[in-house]
Amino acid sequence: MSTGKFIVIEGMEGAGKSSAIAVIESTLNKHGIEYINTREPGGTPLAESLRDMVKSVDHQEKLTVETELLLMYASRSQLLANKILPALAAGKWVIGDRHDLSSRAYQGGGRGFDETIMNTISDITLKGFRPDITLYLDIDPHIGLSRAKARGDLDRIELEKMEFFIRVHNKYRELAEQDDSIITVDAAQAMLKVHQDVEKAVIGFITNTDKG
Amino acid sequence: MSTGKFIVIEGMEGAGKSSAIAVIESTLNKHGIEYINTREPGGTPLAESLRDMVKSVDHQEKLTVETELLLMYASRSQLLANKILPALAAGKWVIGDRHDLSSRAYQGGGRGFDETIMNTISDITLKGFRPDITLYLDIDPHIGLSRAKARGDLDRIELEKMEFFIRVHNKYRELAEQDDSIITVDAAQAMLKVHQDVEKAVIGFITNTDKG
Repeated sequence: MSTGKFIVIEGMEGAGKSSAIAVIESTLNKHGIEYINTREPGGTPLAESLRDMVKSVDHQEKLTVETELLLMYASRSQLLANKILPALAAGKWVIGDRHDLSSRAYQGGGRGFDETIMNTISDITLKGFRPDITLYLDIDPHIGLSRAKARGDLDRIELEKMEFFIRVHNKYRELAEQDDSIITVDAAQAMLKVHQDVEKAVIGFITNTDKG
Repeated sequence: MSTGKFIVIEGMEGAGKSSAIAVIESTLNKHGIEYINTREPGGTPLAESLRDMVKSVDHQEKLTVETELLLMYASRSQLLANKILPALAAGKWVIGDRHDLSSRAYQGGGRGFDETIMNTISDITLKGFRPDITLYLDIDPHIGLSRAKARGDLDRIELEKMEFFIRVHNKYRELAEQDDSIITVDAAQAMLKVHQDVEKAVIGFITNTDKG
């Protein structure tokens, strides 16, 4: 039995990750590919507790940026060992709502942890494990945030200032340009067009996988 | 106003840390030195939640060694920012029940994370912050563990095999030999003698601090 593939969807608040995931699911279903869904931070009982710690706005104490970084990777370690790797080994595909690229963008770009730190902590946690393909939904942070705000309550990270999100966005774009396994989708387009682009990318990946 | 000092007590299960801490407290009291107590992992509400995650034996999922490492340092980051540094800045001394040396011994020595990894994650979290003095209670792990077992329930880490504790012990000794700020106390001696050694070390430190 062949191992499954890890497809990750990335992007900022309001980029449309949820509906893009629905498109990926529908595409995999049409091709008869069995999959599981994950989200980060979170995705296991312990990782979900860490998610709550990182996202909650009403802590009794201030979270340091170092704690935020370390908890993101602790969550990722639990998810990788207890959900992603077992699913892939069982031949299932995994659709990831965020993964390492988010930490690179938010903690690296947004919080300012340098590349050496990000590489080291990522290597400790992932030991070279990487998504097979990442779809990055690119959206101007002003547009994305206004969509997210219209949607309702913002979590602790979503309450950061606009400069933070601009740094996150710049880092996303920088990293997407450097990495051939990241496909950038223009999320400012009409939704139908965004979904077509996502579907096309997934079909292209499935076709290549079948050939490979 | 002068800043306080950070005194750390270190050692393995059953080394006698609790009664040594009582000796340190009594010595500081005699010298009219105001202090607070901390313990690691833990010491803030969020850090205590992380302590529970790390020590609990009945998780719904296996903790990876990477998660253990990351949560230890996340806990340390919260404690440093929210308790240790404010206390020291207010002129109070801090008596720490374990600190970075424990991670070096347990996660470094015990779990086998190499020195580069340990240095990097310690630097990210502590940015060079160090205890002013560490009292390391040295005990043969066979003796220490049998004392700890006699005392009652063992937590997740205390349930490790003896080889784990031998690696922890070797790392403790190796690091204590390399660092002049770590004073090794022979914890296999009669309790009265251990307490005398601890008191003497603390008085020596206070005297040097007064002179400095």
